[in-house]
Amino acid sequence: MPHEVKILTESDLRGLVKLDREAVDVVERAFLALGTGKVIMPPIMSMAIPQANGEVDVKTAYIPGFDSFAIKVSPGFFDNPKIGLPSLNGLMILFSAKTGLVEALLLDNGYLTDVRTAAAGAVAAKHLAPGNVQTAGVIGTGGQARLQLEAAHLVQPFRNVVVWGRDVEKAEKCAADLAERLGIRAEAVADPRDVVAQSQLVVTTTPSEEPLIRSDWLHPGLHITAMGSDQAGKNEIDPAALVAADLYVCDRLSQCEKLGELRSAVEAGVWKKVPPPELGDLLCGRHPGRTSDDQITICDLTGTGAQDTAIATFAMERARQRGAGAAFMT
Amino acid sequence: MPHEVKILTESDLRGLVKLDREAVDVVERAFLALGTGKVIMPPIMSMAIPQANGEVDVKTAYIPGFDSFAIKVSPGFFDNPKIGLPSLNGLMILFSAKTGLVEALLLDNGYLTDVRTAAAGAVAAKHLAPGNVQTAGVIGTGGQARLQLEAAHLVQPFRNVVVWGRDVEKAEKCAADLAERLGIRAEAVADPRDVVAQSQLVVTTTPSEEPLIRSDWLHPGLHITAMGSDQAGKNEIDPAALVAADLYVCDRLSQCEKLGELRSAVEAGVWKKVPPPELGDLLCGRHPGRTSDDQITICDLTGTGAQDTAIATFAMERARQRGAGAAFMT
Repeated sequence: MPHEVKILTESDLRGLVKLDREAVDVVERAFLALGTGKVIMPPIMSMAIPQANGEVDVKTAYIPGFDSFAIKVSPGFFDNPKIGLPSLNGLMILFSAKTGLVEALLLDNGYLTDVRTAAAGAVAAKHLAPGNVQTAGVIGTGGQARLQLEAAHLVQPFRNVVVWGRDVEKAEKCAADLAERLGIRAEAVADPRDVVAQSQLVVTTTPSEEPLIRSDWLHPGLHITAMGSDQAGKNEIDPAALVAADLYVCDRLSQCEKLGELRSAVEAGVWKKVPPPELGDLLCGRHPGRTSDDQITICDLTGTGAQDTAIATFAMERARQRGAGAAFMT
Repeated sequence: MPHEVKILTESDLRGLVKLDREAVDVVERAFLALGTGKVIMPPIMSMAIPQANGEVDVKTAYIPGFDSFAIKVSPGFFDNPKIGLPSLNGLMILFSAKTGLVEALLLDNGYLTDVRTAAAGAVAAKHLAPGNVQTAGVIGTGGQARLQLEAAHLVQPFRNVVVWGRDVEKAEKCAADLAERLGIRAEAVADPRDVVAQSQLVVTTTPSEEPLIRSDWLHPGLHITAMGSDQAGKNEIDPAALVAADLYVCDRLSQCEKLGELRSAVEAGVWKKVPPPELGDLLCGRHPGRTSDDQITICDLTGTGAQDTAIATFAMERARQRGAGAAFMT
């Protein structure tokens, strides 16, 4: 039966959804819903295509109370830069949670993923960073390095930024960009140890396969959000750090034990604790969060379909309000 | 980076892709590729939404030699008919197999699934039915009952059709439609046993959860394609029949043992044979098919992502040739 489908391009979506407090609130609602146990979220569908040095992931989640659910498809084809194309692409499809009809095609080329990923970092910072963060550090110099600190700054308005990356020039450019965007002081440092030493909040944003942060660098009053590892094989944090911290929290246990920092800690044989809490458990009060400013906390983010459903539903609400996008009958 | 995405509506797609020999050939290529072992096909992603009496399945596959791969999303929301909407919907998204860029959105509302499902039945009939099928029978009276016999008739031009359904009126309507579409004699019968007794080729197309065909109805020179069961809980064929047949073939073992007739046979404890061959194994000559006209064969079809990639790629080729569809920059 023909019905209307809205088509929103990346340009439309950049106009509708910004990385702001509202976006953070929407993603926080998704984590709260995950904590209540009422979200339906199947395992990530993943297909590697070695012939093209590519992979594609599919995520989805149904969140009670949300009118729609998203299915997100994220291809990553890592030879693309050789022919002038970005490695990462993708789109989200929004379906009515009542009828399953396609409501909208969000041709975002990964933009909404960028926003919801950074927003999750802000949710982690809001609930886990110590009070009065003066300095925030970032490991990595890519798009998420910038977005993660922008997002964290919305909820923890720190005054200084320190950046480390393997490429000094890129680290300096990242620091300059952050100084300009946030209107605060930002500098690149030559050693990741200095990032950790100077910061109360650190975000790791790399695809590293070897730990970049050592356990003996941890200090009282530190929170680390590790958002780089989203695949088996990636690892940014010394496995011993997860055990040394007062509190280790994952976004979704079933994902982190396969794709996150937890995987490395379990494989290294150092994680022998009971299953760690999820971020949503903290939000809904089922598990205590940070209990004092001098604790050390770590949050492991692999990215959930619930975040995708939340941000896509939010984008569609905005599009309806503003009459944005093209309508197609099909 | 902005690039062009083609949008094809159900109406476009109905104009571009018909259930004909070419569609059967394309789906046959997908099964051949499955047989060579070079297809990459992750498990089906499935999300049940009990709150809305709904479910959504996602299928995909990469087939070497195909320029694109499809991701198909199939929602089924079973309260929809109460508000005048169809239960089944969905779309396919076509991606470049070289870059992962979105090439096309195929807003088919399930039309391409109907075609590729019927085409798979034709592939099974072509390779497994005895020579000289005079009469084809169908159990079930829905859309696939018609399409399966239309598709089978392309490869096995039988002269008579017998139809059984729980609802006599629907069975008579289905028979009348098939008589008209195929220009042959078709009649409804009151007992499914008569369908089996009179036919050399039978297709079962129902969502039944109890066997509709008993093992002791099997007779020499019979092929049955069971395409109704695509979920745990469904079962059209007496489990004993799978063992009694000379040859039982599945479309994909990993799916059929969870979702197909094989699941019931394993659960009933009657399937103790070695793992059965897949249809692709027969096509590529790795496993013998029917070796004489008086054998009894059964083919269990749960529907594969490879079929989706094949039909969607085919639709896109046609769209390019004919300049069909709308182009969107995103």
